[in-house]
Amino acid sequence: MSYAIVVHGGAGPRRDQEHGEAARAGCLAAAEVGAAVLAQGGSALDAVEQTARVLEDDPLFNAGYGAVLNADGDVELDASVMDGETLLAGAVAVVKTVKNPVSLARLVMEKTPHVLLVGDGAEAFARAQGLATIASGSLVTPLQHQRWLTRQGSTHGTIGAVAVDARGQVAAATSTGGTAGKLKGRVGDSPLIGAGTVADSRWAAVSCTGAGEFIIRVGLARSVLEAVRHGASLARACEEAVAELSRLGGDGGVIAVTPQGEVGWAFCSERMAGAFVRADGQRGTFFERSP
Amino acid sequence: MSYAIVVHGGAGPRRDQEHGEAARAGCLAAAEVGAAVLAQGGSALDAVEQTARVLEDDPLFNAGYGAVLNADGDVELDASVMDGETLLAGAVAVVKTVKNPVSLARLVMEKTPHVLLVGDGAEAFARAQGLATIASGSLVTPLQHQRWLTRQGSTHGTIGAVAVDARGQVAAATSTGGTAGKLKGRVGDSPLIGAGTVADSRWAAVSCTGAGEFIIRVGLARSVLEAVRHGASLARACEEAVAELSRLGGDGGVIAVTPQGEVGWAFCSERMAGAFVRADGQRGTFFERSP
Repeated sequence: MSYAIVVHGGAGPRRDQEHGEAARAGCLAAAEVGAAVLAQGGSALDAVEQTARVLEDDPLFNAGYGAVLNADGDVELDASVMDGETLLAGAVAVVKTVKNPVSLARLVMEKTPHVLLVGDGAEAFARAQGLATIASGSLVTPLQHQRWLTRQGSTHGTIGAVAVDARGQVAAATSTGGTAGKLKGRVGDSPLIGAGTVADSRWAAVSCTGAGEFIIRVGLARSVLEAVRHGASLARACEEAVAELSRLGGDGGVIAVTPQGEVGWAFCSERMAGAFVRADGQRGTFFERSP
Repeated sequence: MSYAIVVHGGAGPRRDQEHGEAARAGCLAAAEVGAAVLAQGGSALDAVEQTARVLEDDPLFNAGYGAVLNADGDVELDASVMDGETLLAGAVAVVKTVKNPVSLARLVMEKTPHVLLVGDGAEAFARAQGLATIASGSLVTPLQHQRWLTRQGSTHGTIGAVAVDARGQVAAATSTGGTAGKLKGRVGDSPLIGAGTVADSRWAAVSCTGAGEFIIRVGLARSVLEAVRHGASLARACEEAVAELSRLGGDGGVIAVTPQGEVGWAFCSERMAGAFVRADGQRGTFFERSP
């Protein structure tokens, strides 16, 4: 078996072009962190969590530090993780005082009988687990504060990672600040298993980015997995799922891996930043849709 | 085209046996309300909302008035609705002061760009929409309070409805108090599109009940829809989806309709209360699994 990891740093319109090179570099750097975990025999689950933490900490992306602000000017973070080996999953939404929501999502998976905790309940759980909490304002970057003041439309920048480890087990993680100007308490696709994230070591691991409400309505991540389950190639599964998203009027994209080590991605937005690293040494980045 | 509606009142263990006749009767009475909407040419969406409201108001079921209490002794309600004609959806979670969460879910669908609002944000939206809010304690029945005091395990009692109208359009709605003793902020499958609820007028409408975390992990509602999409009969789609839930270790069930007016249900719990009414006058209830 050979390991592989794919990362995305969000999908959006072409006007984000100026961030292209930085976004590619940020995604590749994060993918290398996950690949190092995999190269040492680590699990896909550890790899996607560590990779997502790097992207959450990078202010270039709309997750963790650097997240967009909601209508009230607050950061509200969503994240999820799923382990394709056990089919266990954990997720949090509307979290304000946790620096790395993906790790809180993993704690929900490992320390509770639940999958999804939101809002005050998720914060209380973080404190009970001894997770360091921070002032919510400390996640706000000057750039995102300026964009909120000027009501500047969001660029999508959700982050995600999917990996297959040397044992052929897959996992997926997704983390986001959601959409700029969203209503307080809005939850997007990223923390919803089957919408923004899914993993099943029989078939595939998938992470999504883009217009969250459309992704929820089509169940984008699971639709990729179901297509693979019903015999489609990974490439075709990604393409057809994204085509359905586009038909509904949403933009966005998916990244995916199979237990056999295949990597795939597809998007109907003008751009989706991402990178991949494989055990055979192949690595690369992607950004613009080919014409 | 001929209309049909199917209702469930929760799935669970056989010890809920004593509630069997009352639960059957409550489900059938609610289904008749929805069938009357459909008989008058009303939409599937209106039918499932009106039906769900009846079940939310019935203290026999774990939704709205009569919901189970969480670890802190509070009611926290979740609900969702999806319109198979437009593929629009709305949902709320961790709502404490709204008598009929299914109607708040419909307002999220119709009045916001979002699908899911939770917690304080969902409450603020309810007030902004002029929805009457109530003291959260007023949703607590003496029975549920007693059960909380004695830490008596929950019987599942999530409610749901799926309908197809005379135009061949389908819709689904689900509403719940969740699991007794759940952590504050826990969100189950009921408000998650693709997990507890899904509707697409090309294929089917589905509502689920049972062990929420397991239902989320298998994407139970969408797995029924995807099986129909890939050629399975409705009955087989329901049976296979529930078999997968059972393999993972979860109990629960599904109800479903197709645009052609077929009705279906399946469950792997010892019982699932439900009822159906069809345009041709056929009506009935179900409760115990056949041996």
